[in-house]
Amino acid sequence: MTEATWYAPRNSMTKPRIASGPRSFMRLPVVEEPLTASGPVDIAVVGVPTDSAVSYRSGARFGPEAIRSASILLRDHNPATGVNITTDLSMVDAGDAPVVPGYHDLTLQRLQQHLEPLYRAGIVPLILGGDHSLVMAEMRALAAVHGKISVVHFDAHGDVLDDYYGVKHFHGTMFRRAVEEGVVDPARSIQLGMRGSVHPDDVDAGVALGYEVIPWPELDTLAPQEVGRRIRARVGDSPVLVSFDIDFIDPAYAPGTGTPEVGGPSTYRTVQYLRALGPLNYVGLDIVEVAPPYDHGDITSHAAAVVAFELLGQVAVSR
Amino acid sequence: MTEATWYAPRNSMTKPRIASGPRSFMRLPVVEEPLTASGPVDIAVVGVPTDSAVSYRSGARFGPEAIRSASILLRDHNPATGVNITTDLSMVDAGDAPVVPGYHDLTLQRLQQHLEPLYRAGIVPLILGGDHSLVMAEMRALAAVHGKISVVHFDAHGDVLDDYYGVKHFHGTMFRRAVEEGVVDPARSIQLGMRGSVHPDDVDAGVALGYEVIPWPELDTLAPQEVGRRIRARVGDSPVLVSFDIDFIDPAYAPGTGTPEVGGPSTYRTVQYLRALGPLNYVGLDIVEVAPPYDHGDITSHAAAVVAFELLGQVAVSR
Amino acid sequence: MTEATWYAPRNSMTKPRIASGPRSFMRLPVVEEPLTASGPVDIAVVGVPTDSAVSYRSGARFGPEAIRSASILLRDHNPATGVNITTDLSMVDAGDAPVVPGYHDLTLQRLQQHLEPLYRAGIVPLILGGDHSLVMAEMRALAAVHGKISVVHFDAHGDVLDDYYGVKHFHGTMFRRAVEEGVVDPARSIQLGMRGSVHPDDVDAGVALGYEVIPWPELDTLAPQEVGRRIRARVGDSPVLVSFDIDFIDPAYAPGTGTPEVGGPSTYRTVQYLRALGPLNYVGLDIVEVAPPYDHGDITSHAAAVVAFELLGQVAVSR
Amino acid sequence: MTEATWYAPRNSMTKPRIASGPRSFMRLPVVEEPLTASGPVDIAVVGVPTDSAVSYRSGARFGPEAIRSASILLRDHNPATGVNITTDLSMVDAGDAPVVPGYHDLTLQRLQQHLEPLYRAGIVPLILGGDHSLVMAEMRALAAVHGKISVVHFDAHGDVLDDYYGVKHFHGTMFRRAVEEGVVDPARSIQLGMRGSVHPDDVDAGVALGYEVIPWPELDTLAPQEVGRRIRARVGDSPVLVSFDIDFIDPAYAPGTGTPEVGGPSTYRTVQYLRALGPLNYVGLDIVEVAPPYDHGDITSHAAAVVAFELLGQVAVSR
Amino acid sequence: MTEATWYAPRNSMTKPRIASGPRSFMRLPVVEEPLTASGPVDIAVVGVPTDSAVSYRSGARFGPEAIRSASILLRDHNPATGVNITTDLSMVDAGDAPVVPGYHDLTLQRLQQHLEPLYRAGIVPLILGGDHSLVMAEMRALAAVHGKISVVHFDAHGDVLDDYYGVKHFHGTMFRRAVEEGVVDPARSIQLGMRGSVHPDDVDAGVALGYEVIPWPELDTLAPQEVGRRIRARVGDSPVLVSFDIDFIDPAYAPGTGTPEVGGPSTYRTVQYLRALGPLNYVGLDIVEVAPPYDHGDITSHAAAVVAFELLGQVAVSR
Amino acid sequence: MTEATWYAPRNSMTKPRIASGPRSFMRLPVVEEPLTASGPVDIAVVGVPTDSAVSYRSGARFGPEAIRSASILLRDHNPATGVNITTDLSMVDAGDAPVVPGYHDLTLQRLQQHLEPLYRAGIVPLILGGDHSLVMAEMRALAAVHGKISVVHFDAHGDVLDDYYGVKHFHGTMFRRAVEEGVVDPARSIQLGMRGSVHPDDVDAGVALGYEVIPWPELDTLAPQEVGRRIRARVGDSPVLVSFDIDFIDPAYAPGTGTPEVGGPSTYRTVQYLRALGPLNYVGLDIVEVAPPYDHGDITSHAAAVVAFELLGQVAVSR
Repeated sequence: MTEATWYAPRNSMTKPRIASGPRSFMRLPVVEEPLTASGPVDIAVVGVPTDSAVSYRSGARFGPEAIRSASILLRDHNPATGVNITTDLSMVDAGDAPVVPGYHDLTLQRLQQHLEPLYRAGIVPLILGGDHSLVMAEMRALAAVHGKISVVHFDAHGDVLDDYYGVKHFHGTMFRRAVEEGVVDPARSIQLGMRGSVHPDDVDAGVALGYEVIPWPELDTLAPQEVGRRIRARVGDSPVLVSFDIDFIDPAYAPGTGTPEVGGPSTYRTVQYLRALGPLNYVGLDIVEVAPPYDHGDITSHAAAVVAFELLGQVAVSR
Repeated sequence: MTEATWYAPRNSMTKPRIASGPRSFMRLPVVEEPLTASGPVDIAVVGVPTDSAVSYRSGARFGPEAIRSASILLRDHNPATGVNITTDLSMVDAGDAPVVPGYHDLTLQRLQQHLEPLYRAGIVPLILGGDHSLVMAEMRALAAVHGKISVVHFDAHGDVLDDYYGVKHFHGTMFRRAVEEGVVDPARSIQLGMRGSVHPDDVDAGVALGYEVIPWPELDTLAPQEVGRRIRARVGDSPVLVSFDIDFIDPAYAPGTGTPEVGGPSTYRTVQYLRALGPLNYVGLDIVEVAPPYDHGDITSHAAAVVAFELLGQVAVSR
Repeated sequence: MTEATWYAPRNSMTKPRIASGPRSFMRLPVVEEPLTASGPVDIAVVGVPTDSAVSYRSGARFGPEAIRSASILLRDHNPATGVNITTDLSMVDAGDAPVVPGYHDLTLQRLQQHLEPLYRAGIVPLILGGDHSLVMAEMRALAAVHGKISVVHFDAHGDVLDDYYGVKHFHGTMFRRAVEEGVVDPARSIQLGMRGSVHPDDVDAGVALGYEVIPWPELDTLAPQEVGRRIRARVGDSPVLVSFDIDFIDPAYAPGTGTPEVGGPSTYRTVQYLRALGPLNYVGLDIVEVAPPYDHGDITSHAAAVVAFELLGQVAVSR
Repeated sequence: MTEATWYAPRNSMTKPRIASGPRSFMRLPVVEEPLTASGPVDIAVVGVPTDSAVSYRSGARFGPEAIRSASILLRDHNPATGVNITTDLSMVDAGDAPVVPGYHDLTLQRLQQHLEPLYRAGIVPLILGGDHSLVMAEMRALAAVHGKISVVHFDAHGDVLDDYYGVKHFHGTMFRRAVEEGVVDPARSIQLGMRGSVHPDDVDAGVALGYEVIPWPELDTLAPQEVGRRIRARVGDSPVLVSFDIDFIDPAYAPGTGTPEVGGPSTYRTVQYLRALGPLNYVGLDIVEVAPPYDHGDITSHAAAVVAFELLGQVAVSR
Repeated sequence: MTEATWYAPRNSMTKPRIASGPRSFMRLPVVEEPLTASGPVDIAVVGVPTDSAVSYRSGARFGPEAIRSASILLRDHNPATGVNITTDLSMVDAGDAPVVPGYHDLTLQRLQQHLEPLYRAGIVPLILGGDHSLVMAEMRALAAVHGKISVVHFDAHGDVLDDYYGVKHFHGTMFRRAVEEGVVDPARSIQLGMRGSVHPDDVDAGVALGYEVIPWPELDTLAPQEVGRRIRARVGDSPVLVSFDIDFIDPAYAPGTGTPEVGGPSTYRTVQYLRALGPLNYVGLDIVEVAPPYDHGDITSHAAAVVAFELLGQVAVSR
Repeated sequence: MTEATWYAPRNSMTKPRIASGPRSFMRLPVVEEPLTASGPVDIAVVGVPTDSAVSYRSGARFGPEAIRSASILLRDHNPATGVNITTDLSMVDAGDAPVVPGYHDLTLQRLQQHLEPLYRAGIVPLILGGDHSLVMAEMRALAAVHGKISVVHFDAHGDVLDDYYGVKHFHGTMFRRAVEEGVVDPARSIQLGMRGSVHPDDVDAGVALGYEVIPWPELDTLAPQEVGRRIRARVGDSPVLVSFDIDFIDPAYAPGTGTPEVGGPSTYRTVQYLRALGPLNYVGLDIVEVAPPYDHGDITSHAAAVVAFELLGQVAVSR
C-alpha cells in the first residue's frame, strides 16, 4: 500500500457483479493491515460479528457477511443526491474486528482497541454489526480520540434501560451507559424512531438522560427536511456518530433483525431522512442488528447496504 | 386460584424473555380451569386452532402458537397511549378451545359451548385464530349472552358470500349468516378495509345486508381520528365484538395468512386506526387468519401480537 | 375451437379454487394452437420462462409458473373500477413460448417468431416473464406489426445501458437498443419509477435517448391521477406496450425479483397508478422479473397477478 | 378426443421443460371430460386437494400442484427397470376432483362419485393427495366396482385408530373403517413401514384387524426382493390398491408432510421396494400427504413424483 | 401439588394435539415451583435457552421452544421397545432455567444453582438446550450431588479443545474442563460419533484425556447392540449423564444446528444406538444445539423430540 | 507476492471463524494476480458463477459465494485420513473467473482463457461452480496443456446428450462433446452415480461413447475400496480431472442444486468414495451445480465444502 493508492470498487463492467469473488463491501479492496496513515483512506468498513448480548433473537453475527454480499449490487453514483462516493471517498474493506462470543465485556475491550487507531488516523469506520451492544466500544474509542461525542441514533428502541437480569451491558442499555461514562454528550445528541411497547422503567428515560427524542408517532408527522434541520441544530459542529439500528425500519422492509418492532417507517422514508442529514462532522458510522437467519430474499441486507450508501454520501458532501 | 389473585405477565427482568418457558400469551399465567367468577379475570386469551373451512391456504391452526410465541416480546406499557394493560387488566392465558378438524359444524358447536361461560362471567376472551370461520361460534355465544351484538370488522374481505360449492359455512360467509341468524345487528356494525377482486355476487353485498362498509380505497383517504368517530357513531353503546382478520394489513406486513390481498394498509396505519377506536362496550375480541407456514421472520405473528396489545389497551381505557 | 367460443375462467363456486387442476392463468382454458383468427380471443397469456441474461439473481424462469399459481385467487370483478374483465374480454392461457437457456440471441429470435402472429391477429398477449431482456423480442415483434410503438415502462431501473462486459443484449440495455433499432418511439414513451444507485454512464441516459423519465423521488410527489394524465399526454393514441418490471414495487412488497431496489412504492400506490392509466391503444402487456426462489409466502406472485388484473381492466375499458 | 389418440407427455426436446406451460403431471395432456371409454386411456392422474381432516399440520391441499410441478422433470425411460411408461401406457392428467374444505363427509361423497366412473372404465387413477383421509372414498369407489380389494399400504402410521375427539373419519382411521365397511380384505392386504410412538389403543391394532403388518424395524432387516415376495404372496391376483403415504420415507428425504415421523427409510430404499413389487392386478394408486408449505427445495415433491413414476412402471410391467 | 399427583400428558383424544395450548414438552403439566420432594416427580424437563458461547451459528436459544413444539406429536407408547413412558415415569415441564446472554460464566453459575436442587431431590432433569456449553453447569451440579460422574457423549465433535481466542469456556472445551475440574471420570466415560475436519490441537485429544472415543468411521462399522455393550461396559453402575448434541446426526436429518458436520448417521441409526443403551444409573440427560432458525419443516426439532423420547424410555426401563 | 510465501488459512484461534472478514475459501488469502510461477501455489480456488445453460433450476451462479461461506468452518486436519492439507499444499483463493450471463459460448471462451495459464503453471485449480456446463472450458484448457485427459465424473446424470432444443452446449451434453472434440479419453475415464429417469436417447449413451459407467444401483452394491480400485485401474497415471456434480449426492443431503435426482447416496458414503480415490495424477478439480436459492441451513454448501476438503486431501497424498 502506497500513499498514492486510491481505493475504489472493482469494475463491474468487465466482469459481472456476481463474479466479484470473495464478497467485500461494495467490491472494495480488502486491506486489513494497520490503516494509520491519515492520507488516502477515508472510510474503512469494519465487520463486527457479535450477537452474544441480545435479549431476543440472535443471528446478527452474520450481519457483516450478509451486508457485504448485498452491497455488491451498489453502483457508484447516487442520482438523487448527485454524489459519487467512489470518487469522493477512498474506501477499503478492513475485514472483521475481533470478538469473543459469550464474553461481552471482553468483546468490548478488544473491539475498542481495534477501532481506536482508526479514529486516531482520521479514518471514519463504517461498522457493520453485529448487535447494537457493540456501540459501547465504538463510543468509548471515539471519546478517547475526540472527547465527548454527539450521537444521532436511529432505532425503534431507546436502549436506555438500566440493567437486565442483573447485568449492565447488553443491547438495551448502551445509551444510558454512554451518558454515565461521559463518552456521549446527550445535550448534543438525538434519538429518532422509538416505538412499540416498553418496560415501565423505560418511559421517558431517554429524555430524562438529556437526549432529544423524537418517537415515531411524532417523527411520522415531520417532513424529512424538518427532521434534518432538527438534527443539525442539535448536533452543531460536534464530532458525531450516526448509529443506525436496522429495526428503525418497519419489519416488512427489514424482517431480518433481532428485536422486530412492527409499525415503523418504510425504507424510502428512511432514505429521505438520511438524505436530509446534510453536512456534519461525521466521525463514526454504524449499521447494526441485521440478523440474516430471519431475513428473506436478502431484503434486510439490501436495505442495510443502501442505508450505508446514503450515509457515505452524507460523509462525502461534508468534506 | 383465589379471588385475590391478580394475573399479570411473568417478570422479564429477572430471566430474559427467551427464558419464559412454555409460550403463553404475553408470558401470562395459564389458567384453564373454569373461569366463571366475574371477579379477578378481565381477559382470557383463548386459542382456536382451526383451518378446516378455508378456501385457499390452510395453516391458521398454528396461529395461536405463533402469536403466543411472538407475544413474549410485548412489554407492559404503551407509550403512545399511556396505557399499561397489565396493571389495568387482570389477564390469563386460558389455553385452547376444542376443535374438530374436518368437521366445521361440530367445531362451531364445541367452540360455542366453550366460550359461552366466559361471556356469561363477564370475561372478555381474546380469541387467537384459527381461520375466520370460527367467528360464527363467537357471535352465537355472544348473542346468547348479550342479545344482538355490534361488530367492528377489520378485513380485506367482507365475508358476506351466500355459499361456496354448496355449503353455507366457511370462512367467506359468516357476516351474512350472522345477520340471517339475528346474532348481529348490522345497523350498528361496520366493516372496514375491503379490497381486491371479488365474485360478482359479492359486489355491495355487505351494504345490502345493512352493514356500513368502508372499503380500503375510501378508508385510505380518511384520517384515523375520523375513522374512530365513524366507528363510535355506528356502534354507540351496544355490546361490540372487534373481529380483526390479519389480512386487513397488506401482505408485505402480514404475509402469513390464508387469503392474501395485496394493496392494503401498513401496520402503522392499522395501529393508528386501533388507537382511534376509543371507549366502547367491548365484549369480544378476535385476531384471526394468521397462517404461520406462510410467514417469515415471524413478522405476521408480531403484527398480530401488537394488534392484540392495542385492542387490549382500548378495552383498558373503556373500563 | 369454434368462432362462437367465449373463453372465461373456470367456475370457482362449484369446486374451490384449490381444485382447479393444472394452474393456468386465472383458471382460464389452455389453448396453445395457433390463435390467429382475430375473432373471439382478446387476450392470450404467454409465459416466457427466461433468466439467462440477468446480471444479478436468476430464478425468473419460474415466474410464469408462480404467477399462474397465484392468479387462481383472482375473482372476476374489480369493485374499485367497476370492471369485470371476464365478461369484457375473451381470454385464454396460451402456454409458454420457446426459450433457449444460455443463448439469449436465439431466445429472442424464437420468441419474436412466436409472438408476431398473435399481434398480427389483433390479440393482446399478456406476457408473464421471465427476465426483462425478453422485451426486446416483444418490441421487435410489435414493431413488425404496428411500426414504431410507444412504451409505458414501470421499473426501478431505466435499462438504457450501452453494454455490459462486452455484450449488447442483457436485462439492462433493452430500452436503448429499442431506440437504436427504431422499434420504439421515445418521444411518445415514458419511464417511471427509476431509483437507487446507478453506474455513472447511466445518469440521465433515458432522457438523452428521448424518453420522458419520472424517477421515483419525483413520482412519489405526484397524485396518481396526475401521473395518468402525463402518461396519456405522452402516449396519445399510438400503439402502446405497457412493460411492468416487478422491481418497480418496493422489495418489501415484491421481494421475489432479480435486482431488488429498496426504497420504492407500495403495491397499493402502484395499483393506483395503474387504475389511472385510462383508455389507451394497448397492443402489448408484460410483467417481468418475478423470481420465485427469492419470494416468500408468494407475495410477489400475488402482487404480479394483481398488476396483471389491473392492466387487463385498463384494456377492457379501452375497448 | 378420438379413439385413436395416444396420450403422452409433451416433447421436452424442442422447448425446455421449464417452458411446458401450465404444469400438468409429467407434461401430459389435460383431459377432464368424461374418460369412460375403456380404450385409449390407461392412467388418469387425479388431484385431490384436501387437508381438512388432519390432526397435525395442514397444507396437503397444495400437494397435487407441487407434485405436478416437480413431475415435469420426469423423463420417459427408467434405466433401472428398462420400462418406458410413456410408450406402454396412455396417460392423461384429468385435473382435480371436487372437495369441500371443512366438510369431510361431503368431500368423501363427491370424491367417490368422481372416481367411480374411472374405475368402471378400467382406468387406473393415479391420485395425488391431499391428505390420506381421501383414501376412504377411493376404497369405497373401488369396492363398488371390484368388490373387496386388497391394499398395499406404505406409511409410517397404520391409520387404524377407532376415533379421534369423537369422530370416526379423519386421516388416522381409514384402514379400520375399510375393514368394518367391508371394502378391503385385510387377509389379502399388507401394511409396511409403521414406526414411531403410538397411542396405546394403536398397539397391534392393524394385526388385530387382520392385516399383515411389517413395521419399519422389521422391514429394515429385509431385502427388497424379499419384501416384494411377501407382498405378492399376500395379495395374489386380487385387485389391489397401492396407497403410498409420503411419510413412509424419512423426513430428511420428505420433510413436506403433515405428520413427520423421523427414523424411516431413505428414498432409494423406498424405490427399491417399489421396483420389487412386480406384476400385480393394480386397480388403484395414490400418493398422499405431501404438504408443500413444509417442503424445501421441493425435495418432497420430487420424491413423490419419482414414487409415482416407479408405481406407473410396475403397472406397465403388469399389463 | 400434592404427593398423590401423577404427572402425565394431556389427553390428546378429546382435543387434538394442535389444541394443546401453550406448548409444554409432550403436553405435560407445567410445574415450576420447587420440585424438591423426591416423591412423585421422576423427570423434570428444563429449557436452557442459551447460545452466547458458540463459535459459528447462534440460534440455539430457541431450541427449547422448538423441541417443546415438536414434542406435542409424541404419543405415549413405544412399540419398538414396549415401553410407555407416561405410565412408568411421572414427568413435568419445569419451564426454563435462568440464563444471561453475553455472560457465559454468569449463565453457568445461575444454571448450576437452578439444577442442583433437582439432582439433590432425585429428579432426572431432561435439559433442552441451548448450546452445548451449558453442560459445564450440568456436570458441576451433578458432581456436587453425586461426585464424579460418567458421561455418554453423542456428538460430531469431542469438545475437548483447550481454549479459543483466549477463553477457556465455550461450546468446544467442556469435556476437557470437566476432566480438569474433576467433575467427570473419563475412565468411565465414552464419546461417540466424532467426525469431520479438526484443529491440529484436537487430534486424539479426547483419548489423551482418558475418554474412550468411538469416532464415526469406526462407529459406522459397529452393530447397535455392540455399541450398547461397549457403553455399558465402560459406564458400569456409575451415575451417568447422557449428553446428546444433535449434530451427532447428519445435517440432512438435523440441519437446524450451530456447527453442522456433514457425513454422519441417520436418525434411525441413532435411534437404534439409543435403544441399545439399556439399563444404566441415569442421573442426567440433555439434548443440545438445536438451532431452529436453521431448521426447516421442524425436522430437527422432531428428531430431538424423538431422541428425548427414546432416552426417557431407557430411564424407564432402568427403574 | 514473493517466492517464499506459503499460503495458508487465517488463524481461527485468535479471532473466531465468524470474524474472518470477506469469505474466501477456507479463509485463504485472496490472490488474483497472475499465478503463473510454478513455485509456491499448489491450489488456486476459482469461482465460476454461471447458470445460464441449465435446463431446469437456475441459481448456481451463487454457488461459489455459498461454498466459500460454508468453507470457513473447515479446519486444517482430517483425522480420518491423517492429512493436513494446509501444511501439505500452498493454497490461495484466486477469486472468480469472467462469465457472460446469457452467452454460453462466450463464457466458455473467456473461462478457457482464464484457466489455461493456471494449468500451464502447474497449479491445480479447484473450480467452484456454477453449473456443470463450465466443465467444457475446463476440459478444453486442460487438453491444451496436457493433451487428452481422463475424467472421474461423479454425477446423477451422464451429461452425454447430443443436443437440446437445437443447441449443442448446455449442462447435459459436455461429456459427449468432450469425446467428439478429443479433449477427453473415454477409455481412461469413468462415470459414477447415474440414476433416475432418462430420455430414451440417453440410455447407455455413456458406454457407447467409450466411458466406463457405474450407475448408482450398481455403485450402491460396491465397497468404497473396490470403487477406488476400479477408478485407479481405469485412470492409471493419466492426467485426471475429478468433476463432481453435487447432485451425485441425494437431495436430502444436497437439496440446493439445479436438477435434483432423488434416490442417491448419502454424504458419508460419498466421502468414503472420495477417500478411496488414492494417489492419482490430479490436474483439475471441480465441484458444480450448488444452487443456493434451493438450499436450506446451507447443508448443500457444507457438503460441497467437505467434498472439496476430501478432494484436496487426495491431491495432498498424491504429491
